[in-house]
Amino acid sequence: MLTPFDDNYFMKKALEEAQLAYEKAEVPVGAVITHQNTIIARSHNLTEQLTDVTAHAEMQAITSAANFIGGKYLKDCTLYVTLEPCQMCAGALYWSQISRLVFAAEDEKRGYRNMGTKLHPKTKVKLGVLAEEASSLLKRFFIEKRNLN
Amino acid sequence: MLTPFDDNYFMKKALEEAQLAYEKAEVPVGAVITHQNTIIARSHNLTEQLTDVTAHAEMQAITSAANFIGGKYLKDCTLYVTLEPCQMCAGALYWSQISRLVFAAEDEKRGYRNMGTKLHPKTKVKLGVLAEEASSLLKRFFIEKRNLN
Repeated sequence: MLTPFDDNYFMKKALEEAQLAYEKAEVPVGAVITHQNTIIARSHNLTEQLTDVTAHAEMQAITSAANFIGGKYLKDCTLYVTLEPCQMCAGALYWSQISRLVFAAEDEKRGYRNMGTKLHPKTKVKLGVLAEEASSLLKRFFIEKRNLN
Repeated sequence: MLTPFDDNYFMKKALEEAQLAYEKAEVPVGAVITHQNTIIARSHNLTEQLTDVTAHAEMQAITSAANFIGGKYLKDCTLYVTLEPCQMCAGALYWSQISRLVFAAEDEKRGYRNMGTKLHPKTKVKLGVLAEEASSLLKRFFIEKRNLN
C-alpha cells in the first residue's frame, strides 16, 4: 500500500519547525516525534529565546512526547530531527529508549557519533533524509549571522 | 580566612535535595549551582513525578541558574551534584561552559566518564566530596525498591 506517511513526509514537518526557529533567529533545527504515523510532538530550537542551553528541539520533543503518552519511555516512537543530535540530546534519547531516530544533516563537529555518545541498544538509526534541505537552511543562518556581526 | 562556604558545605545542600527526591520515591540525586559562594539554583531528580527522562537534577539546575543569571553560560559557576552526571547532563554542562563540576558518588555504569562524554575544556572537575553519604542514600533507595517489587 502506498502511504504519504514516509520518512520524507515527517522530515518535511521537522523542516517546517526548523524554519520557525530560523524566523526567530535561533539555530534552525526542528524535530517531530511520531507514534503509529501520527505526530505526537513538534518543536524547534529555542535556546536563545529561553536563554537555556537545554532547550534544543529534541529535548523539548522528548518531554512533550512523554507527556502525550503518559509514560517516560518512547516505545514505538520515531524522532525526526533536521540535524544530528548532540551529546545531550543523544543522552536523553538513551534514557527514553526511543525505537527509532531519523536525522537529516550530519554534524561532524558536535554530533553524537563523533563525540562517542551511546544511544540505547533498542534504537535504530537512519540518516541523510532531506539532508540537503536541512543543511542549506543551517548554512544560510550561519552566513547571515556572520554578516551581521 | 576561614569560611563555612567550602565544597563540603555546598555538597551538603545538594544532599538535602537528594533527600527530598528520596522522600518522593525518586532516584535520590540532588544538585545546587553556586555563583560567588551563593546558591543560585537547587533541584532534585523528578523523572517519575514529571514522567520525563530529561528531569534530572542537573538539567533543572542548569535551566534555573541560567534563568537567574539572565544568560546561557554558567561562567564562574559551580555545579554540586550527589551523583556523577550521565551523558545527557554532561552534554548539557558542555553547552553551558560551566566553570566547575563537583560530584559526590561515582557512577561506573552510566557516569559520563566511562560513557566517554566530553565536558567543555573550561570545566574543572572535582569528585568524591561526601561520596559515602551520597552513595548510602542511593543504595538505601535501590534496596528498598527491590524489596517492594
